[in-house]
Amino acid sequence: MPDPHKVVIIGGGFGGLTAAQTLKNAPLQVTLVDRHNYHLFQPLLYQVATGSLSPANVAGPLRQVLRKQKNTQVLLGEATHIDAANRRVILSDGALDYDTLIVATGAKHQYFGHDEWEQFAPGLKNLDDATAMRGRILLAFEAAERERDAKKLRAWMTFVIVGAGPTGAELAGALGEIAHDTLRHDFRAIDPSQTRIILVEGTDRALPSYPPVLSEAARRMLVRLGVTVRTGAMVTDVRADGVTIRVGDHDEIIPTRTVLWAAGVLASPLGVILSQEAGAKLDRACRVIVEPDMSIAGHAEIFVIGDLSNFSHQTGQPLPGVAQPAIQQGHYVAKLVRARLRGQKLPPFHYFDKGNLATIGRGAAVADLNWLRLSGWPAWLIWVFVHLLYIVQFQNRLLVMLQWGWLYLTFDRSARLITGKKHLPLDL
Amino acid sequence: MPDPHKVVIIGGGFGGLTAAQTLKNAPLQVTLVDRHNYHLFQPLLYQVATGSLSPANVAGPLRQVLRKQKNTQVLLGEATHIDAANRRVILSDGALDYDTLIVATGAKHQYFGHDEWEQFAPGLKNLDDATAMRGRILLAFEAAERERDAKKLRAWMTFVIVGAGPTGAELAGALGEIAHDTLRHDFRAIDPSQTRIILVEGTDRALPSYPPVLSEAARRMLVRLGVTVRTGAMVTDVRADGVTIRVGDHDEIIPTRTVLWAAGVLASPLGVILSQEAGAKLDRACRVIVEPDMSIAGHAEIFVIGDLSNFSHQTGQPLPGVAQPAIQQGHYVAKLVRARLRGQKLPPFHYFDKGNLATIGRGAAVADLNWLRLSGWPAWLIWVFVHLLYIVQFQNRLLVMLQWGWLYLTFDRSARLITGKKHLPLDL
Repeated sequence: MPDPHKVVIIGGGFGGLTAAQTLKNAPLQVTLVDRHNYHLFQPLLYQVATGSLSPANVAGPLRQVLRKQKNTQVLLGEATHIDAANRRVILSDGALDYDTLIVATGAKHQYFGHDEWEQFAPGLKNLDDATAMRGRILLAFEAAERERDAKKLRAWMTFVIVGAGPTGAELAGALGEIAHDTLRHDFRAIDPSQTRIILVEGTDRALPSYPPVLSEAARRMLVRLGVTVRTGAMVTDVRADGVTIRVGDHDEIIPTRTVLWAAGVLASPLGVILSQEAGAKLDRACRVIVEPDMSIAGHAEIFVIGDLSNFSHQTGQPLPGVAQPAIQQGHYVAKLVRARLRGQKLPPFHYFDKGNLATIGRGAAVADLNWLRLSGWPAWLIWVFVHLLYIVQFQNRLLVMLQWGWLYLTFDRSARLITGKKHLPLDL
Repeated sequence: MPDPHKVVIIGGGFGGLTAAQTLKNAPLQVTLVDRHNYHLFQPLLYQVATGSLSPANVAGPLRQVLRKQKNTQVLLGEATHIDAANRRVILSDGALDYDTLIVATGAKHQYFGHDEWEQFAPGLKNLDDATAMRGRILLAFEAAERERDAKKLRAWMTFVIVGAGPTGAELAGALGEIAHDTLRHDFRAIDPSQTRIILVEGTDRALPSYPPVLSEAARRMLVRLGVTVRTGAMVTDVRADGVTIRVGDHDEIIPTRTVLWAAGVLASPLGVILSQEAGAKLDRACRVIVEPDMSIAGHAEIFVIGDLSNFSHQTGQPLPGVAQPAIQQGHYVAKLVRARLRGQKLPPFHYFDKGNLATIGRGAAVADLNWLRLSGWPAWLIWVFVHLLYIVQFQNRLLVMLQWGWLYLTFDRSARLITGKKHLPLDL
């Protein structure tokens, strides 16, 4: 018997995990490599950052999700090179041979060439980011409770969120609810409802990827939660004590101690590695420009899917960096691998856009279902339903439902714990 | 109107929190200071370390627990000095005046003068300890899955737990269940049921503070879970690649990559500070020897309660370092403060021992109710009931119940996430 066909998948996000799952029971050997031991349900990560959910509610161990798949092994590891000539993935601590390689390592936030801003303006990509962001938000209120200087107090009670895409809008909305409802009775020296929440967006509207009518609906819902939406405002500097924004032709300084970053996307470094080591073509965001079947030019055995890929054959521009395209591509590529094993072919990848959802708060969301646009309660109910449906593990579905029910009734975010590195003394 | 009587409580554990809650509605001003923003239900912390529960399930924000108490303010801060003459607590970033001071800062694990062991053998006192320990345990299995060298593999698959008190026994039992049940289908290269779990204890039996018949029952339950109990074994060295134990008059080296520390108790540094700055007397474990009313000699206005205190007036020896004495002392001291305000006195503190419970695994526990000794299922059911009853927040009671039910049915520990500092490359 010949060795089975070896499929290596790098990345256990929506794309990579779907590919692995679609290869279940196929007569081949699958190895899924990820730097983390968990699959993350990223659309709910902001709820960890804002204390509604626990890390374990939005993440499941990859091993457990794939435990029943006898042909699949999960490895904790980080790919550093692709030796395309010899069909080997080089890890930071080993190597893996492949016959087919699926690269699905995604993207992270970027600071437009100002990496020094990151220390003051953390972004949100993994569980550690989320617990760190949660700690920052809660510590700002703790510091405010002890601050006596009015000017410094105002800076502690000012939150700036950079980027009014779905993540930024969700963070801003959740902060609004925290300030007005969750923390209402928690402090003695400050009034949390005096918190200033400023959502800064470079384009002319919130949720710029949505139809203008939904952007306007989102803006109104944000304002109702006490969020100030500053559109047409570019961030030009971020420091420990404030943010500088350029609006039109003048600069404005917003004194703040807490900046949350929800802007800018940078493809995973594996894009550049694939370009150098396998001749892949990159776009300006360092995403890999793929062929109609999601493979890279010259290497039919290497596929790139999800946020790391630029698939523009269908609409002339890259697909949005959300879960849906990644899931559909993971599914497609796995089916293509299975077809090839049988000596068959498949038509090119085709993306079916089911629509987009973003939530701002309780009963406040927008839904663009292409044939129908909704905002407010109906959109929010769809959002709740879809997110519960798509959470990978059944237990998490129960736990999230229970905690959302609780949050809905009591406004209580019980996961507002400050953990991680030492935070004392407070820098007052 | 004169200024209200100021009570400062340092520490929001069982003792400090109970004291604060018992002062509800009293005509005085309470300030509770803690280094963390949460109250921790420490008896279940090992379940966070072993992936059954999430941090937010065993901890609740102190602000939220005390939100309805108008006379009480919670501050995040760390006490560094007690200026007893001027009745001021000095924080690392401020100061607080008091009329009555309640010190309840507890104890942590200690390494018997070998602090260099800590890096290889983490202990378990707060949420960060628990997630770090969880990461270590899970990473050992991840490394084992990728290890080819038989000797190194054996070291990765060997876990040593130092100290067979309740925490050590609970950790060892949970590891046994993880190895035999939870991870059964998760790996391809290793068989987790081959894991060696060695519980090392210096005295001649497990659970030495329990009656011998229960120690023997615990030992049998541990053995059934695949745990090797080594009694009469002193740890004489801990390194990255192993532990040396002395049994009788010969040394034995156990090659292991994972050592968990559940031995040795060291009182909080505030004991020494109280001795230097307020003349408090200390015992050999640096606990504060208190008067019959839990105050310190010469300072009727300073109380020390919980694990930091040595109250031996009742039995001739210190009370055990568990939740019950701390809770009862917190309650007593608060009642005494209220009585003094009214010009009244109280009889000395009297500890009522309700009994002790320790759990080893599913259906496996020991209960010493003084008038009744139980082991196995009856003890375990009491353990479950009591722990659900005492968890502070109602939401956590629901969530813990749901997750225990799930764990019971499926052996699935969904919170087995590796978070925290970078762990790659694996040190193979």
